[in-house]
Amino acid sequence: MKIEEEPGLRVVKRMAEYQPPRSWRTWLIGRPLQTADAPHQTIGKAIGLAVFASDALSSTAYATQEILMILAVAGTAAFGYVFPISIAIVALLAIVTLSYEQTIHAYPGGGGAYIVARDNLGELPAQTAGAALLTDYILTVAVSVSSGVAQIASAYPVLYPYRVSLAVGMIFLIMLINLRGVRESGVTFAIPTYFFLLTMVITVGTGFFKHFTGTLGTVVNPPELAIEPIVGAVTPFIILHAFSSGTAALTGVEAISNGITAFKEPRSRNAGITLIWMAMILGSLFLSISFLAGQVVAVPSEVETVISQLARTIHSSRGVLYQATISATTIILIMAANTAFADFPRLSALIAADGFLPRQLTYRGSRLVYSRGIVALAVLASLLIILFQASVTRLIPLYAIGVFTSFTLSQAGMARRWWKIGKLQPGEEVAEPGSVLRGDRNWQIKMLVNGFGAFCTTLVTFIFAYTKFTDGAWIVLILTPTLVILFFSIHRHYQRLARSLSLEDYGEPPRIPRHRVILPISGVHRGTLSALRYARALSDDVTAVHVSIDPVEAEKIRKKWLIWGDGIRLVILDSPYRLLAEPLLKYIEEIANQRQPNEIITIVVPQFVPKRWYHNLLHTQTALWLRLALLFTPGIVITDVPYQVD
Amino acid sequence: MKIEEEPGLRVVKRMAEYQPPRSWRTWLIGRPLQTADAPHQTIGKAIGLAVFASDALSSTAYATQEILMILAVAGTAAFGYVFPISIAIVALLAIVTLSYEQTIHAYPGGGGAYIVARDNLGELPAQTAGAALLTDYILTVAVSVSSGVAQIASAYPVLYPYRVSLAVGMIFLIMLINLRGVRESGVTFAIPTYFFLLTMVITVGTGFFKHFTGTLGTVVNPPELAIEPIVGAVTPFIILHAFSSGTAALTGVEAISNGITAFKEPRSRNAGITLIWMAMILGSLFLSISFLAGQVVAVPSEVETVISQLARTIHSSRGVLYQATISATTIILIMAANTAFADFPRLSALIAADGFLPRQLTYRGSRLVYSRGIVALAVLASLLIILFQASVTRLIPLYAIGVFTSFTLSQAGMARRWWKIGKLQPGEEVAEPGSVLRGDRNWQIKMLVNGFGAFCTTLVTFIFAYTKFTDGAWIVLILTPTLVILFFSIHRHYQRLARSLSLEDYGEPPRIPRHRVILPISGVHRGTLSALRYARALSDDVTAVHVSIDPVEAEKIRKKWLIWGDGIRLVILDSPYRLLAEPLLKYIEEIANQRQPNEIITIVVPQFVPKRWYHNLLHTQTALWLRLALLFTPGIVITDVPYQVD
Repeated sequence: MKIEEEPGLRVVKRMAEYQPPRSWRTWLIGRPLQTADAPHQTIGKAIGLAVFASDALSSTAYATQEILMILAVAGTAAFGYVFPISIAIVALLAIVTLSYEQTIHAYPGGGGAYIVARDNLGELPAQTAGAALLTDYILTVAVSVSSGVAQIASAYPVLYPYRVSLAVGMIFLIMLINLRGVRESGVTFAIPTYFFLLTMVITVGTGFFKHFTGTLGTVVNPPELAIEPIVGAVTPFIILHAFSSGTAALTGVEAISNGITAFKEPRSRNAGITLIWMAMILGSLFLSISFLAGQVVAVPSEVETVISQLARTIHSSRGVLYQATISATTIILIMAANTAFADFPRLSALIAADGFLPRQLTYRGSRLVYSRGIVALAVLASLLIILFQASVTRLIPLYAIGVFTSFTLSQAGMARRWWKIGKLQPGEEVAEPGSVLRGDRNWQIKMLVNGFGAFCTTLVTFIFAYTKFTDGAWIVLILTPTLVILFFSIHRHYQRLARSLSLEDYGEPPRIPRHRVILPISGVHRGTLSALRYARALSDDVTAVHVSIDPVEAEKIRKKWLIWGDGIRLVILDSPYRLLAEPLLKYIEEIANQRQPNEIITIVVPQFVPKRWYHNLLHTQTALWLRLALLFTPGIVITDVPYQVD
Repeated sequence: MKIEEEPGLRVVKRMAEYQPPRSWRTWLIGRPLQTADAPHQTIGKAIGLAVFASDALSSTAYATQEILMILAVAGTAAFGYVFPISIAIVALLAIVTLSYEQTIHAYPGGGGAYIVARDNLGELPAQTAGAALLTDYILTVAVSVSSGVAQIASAYPVLYPYRVSLAVGMIFLIMLINLRGVRESGVTFAIPTYFFLLTMVITVGTGFFKHFTGTLGTVVNPPELAIEPIVGAVTPFIILHAFSSGTAALTGVEAISNGITAFKEPRSRNAGITLIWMAMILGSLFLSISFLAGQVVAVPSEVETVISQLARTIHSSRGVLYQATISATTIILIMAANTAFADFPRLSALIAADGFLPRQLTYRGSRLVYSRGIVALAVLASLLIILFQASVTRLIPLYAIGVFTSFTLSQAGMARRWWKIGKLQPGEEVAEPGSVLRGDRNWQIKMLVNGFGAFCTTLVTFIFAYTKFTDGAWIVLILTPTLVILFFSIHRHYQRLARSLSLEDYGEPPRIPRHRVILPISGVHRGTLSALRYARALSDDVTAVHVSIDPVEAEKIRKKWLIWGDGIRLVILDSPYRLLAEPLLKYIEEIANQRQPNEIITIVVPQFVPKRWYHNLLHTQTALWLRLALLFTPGIVITDVPYQVD
């Protein structure tokens, strides 16, 4: 490397020549990528559906089961309610889809709940949406992976005892793949998603055919019902409770609104059409599964999933078609977890860029992905799985409440946006951080659509919180505000820092009138003299200080200093309590108290650097202690002069 | 404080004014003491016996029992051998006592095995003695406290399940007392020791009286014998094995030779007489207990100690006299542990002063005791007790082998010393670190006495290692050489350090021809400018470096630098892999490679110091990483310029 030193050139730009070496990380996650390598690729509707639908579609794997699980409290006779409840959920899906359809057209640059709430409702709602979404992404991973493992364990019951380890191992793998940085190449996503759709169409189709020909039958050897039915009557509370559990089916619907930029132009239109398609597939699939599950009298169980019972009843055996259905379901569930691994780091980087999360989350790692966010998500989701023993039923009460909170905030934000648009003059345009406001003749109807959506999802959020409070929803109800408070306190810290670092009203920095150097020494040797030499290069005002425990040793040092001390003053501090750091600190502080404004005191500490780190155990770490103790005293700078020995 | 600045005065001495504040430590271990407070007090023979005998006398509490424990393998009939074996052990005691008597007169300044071996045999034997003794001090604590707890549990069987916690708690208390620094005020020691002697004389006296009047009887309800006798025949191996276990009685005999300086003048004479007294009391007490234990048919057991069985048989009940005997025994055992707490830190400080253990062990803490050694001993002994579940029988095989190794080395060293004295001219004196060699007409006889002692203890050491190898002695046989190797490697490190720091052949330190300063910046703000101001005070050759990940940010910095940069050159390093530290390091290393001899490069790192430590989580710790990465590069000094915010 040549460093050019043209006279008068004050700012030199050049490329760093550092080449990351190969290491175990290269082997694990691939060679580092340059920033310029970032891909720019857009996708069409068919691939878009595959990329963004996995989260939403995968919830059909557990939604029906979780409704049954609640109804079981009122006895198996209550299972008949599963279909009407599913219809109510699909109605809700229709409302939310319509509402998001408008968001997609309003925010062609990506309209996640966080952005919409930030632009239209303010910081508090935005951070609430952020906290709710981040919590929910963690839960998406935990629920999807747990459900995926449950499918595998249904097919191979021998794996049941290892489900926690399996789930954590799976998260680790997904983490690695994401650290590598999956190029969303479409095809990788399209194959499993369409494979899932295909097997589902076959299974559900066969199911309906057998139903109408009267050959469907019921589940052979159903798993035991773990829940003892307490009351025979179906109360409204139980219905609402079951409904809340079923709303997990709606999670993932918002995915497309976050990723509009990935679509080919006209992207809003393409994304919008894809959303409609996704909602229709999701709705009909969910309804079919709920209907058929009722017909075959599937039983909710931790040991065998409803999907497994349905598939083996429809296909009359655990044959190839059954295996295909189970593996497709497992794969789509893992893909859903993978979606969260894309969303969580992206959203946390967005929040961090706004200064509400540690700035480090905005750095992209060697593979151009937000690696810290990915690792954080993997760790948190694994903890949840260990804590809840990979049980979908125990995780579900925590899930979906965050999604519905963000639905509500996003749609309320949209309603507010239409209100603002209604105030505009015709032809007027107002640019906001996330989008541009333009006049719209139909703003009133559109506001009504989003408003109604917001109303419905608010209602569902409350039903959810009420019916599932004791099941675990209280955890989220405490966690989300706590996170919001944390976000704001981080923000306050960054703001204060920015203020105190700001150069506004900052005059010419004053010169340093006097530069005192203090050199603590424990003996007179090459290390000390090397530090002395450095100290003298800094200033003419150098004082060496020796804290003495042993008068004999102090006398030796005095004599040596007279020879080697180069005329520099030495203060020997007698320490009657045999303490080393404290008397020195006291001495330094006294000198610091006498200093003039802008005067600087530098403490030059000679420091051995032994070849092997554990040799440090054989030395007192004076420099370290001084640094910690003097960190908060202004005007004091500590310099270690390392002396490499051996 | 006034700092006097007389012109021409190059070395100023003064008293540090630091007063240690009150804290929880004051409450726990007392207010700090000044070095001048160290006590200088000498003791007479009666008190001396009390101070130094507890370790030796306490072993009578378990020695007989451990002999029986081994004999039990050959069936209860073998218990008859306990008395002859005890006589052999007392004979060994007589030999060792005679030998140590000579050491006391030869080393009036204290003649522990370490010093004697160091002065006469060389470093390897000295360090072996040191390692053996340190190991044994740890075992003294573990064995004595375990035996003390066993006595309590014999009297109060309800405490049996809690013996490990009780033992660890007791060690913690002894540690606290020693951290406080017990002034060896004599009386504190005299009361329990003489109380123990008194109760023992009463118990043993009553026992003999009852024996000769034929009213002694045998143990009522003896504890069950846990050992299933395998062979009926008493083999020589079993006898030797039992003998080895019994030699634990000799531990502590060396105590007086370590502490001669504590005696009144003529100290060698006083110490010598005390040693004879101690040996006589120990011998007769041990013999009596062994004899009476045989008569009452005491049974070795983990649940009730032999002492307890003996005392309740002799006193015909668990009355006051029984209680007195048990509590006196418990107290003397704890006092024995306390002795190790005095010896271990002192010996480790001695070894550390010779450079074979970390130097930190030579510092005396706030209460003038070697606190680090005390804490280390407590931790190690507690670990042993937890590992061996406070079982004396399981600890005994590890014990005593170290003591006998040190006996051997000490006496061999003495023999060597007499040999050296034999070579002296009449009237000639040779000073050694630990003592002065003076001619002695009887050097041949004295050499013979010590030589014979060394021979006997060598024999016992081998018997011990052979018979107890599989019981656990192998642990010590591996541990001791390992420790010796460790000691020597520590020594080598200190020697190398001393050589590389030595000022011999060290000319005038060269001037620094050029002082380059590099200032890494992440932005242009008050913190950076404060660091820039400092950098300019150090040298005229300052270069600021910004590692750029984001070109927009870099452009902002460039513009600000043109205004605020004070004409200093700024290098913007484009980092294509988005790494911060590595390109900077590479840049610094390149500059370092171009440096001239003796040129110094200082890296000035602006560092935020937030008010709360956890705010550091919100910042990248560049300074820390740079420091760690550049520690081993000579000629580079790193300076943090702290900027306190908030």
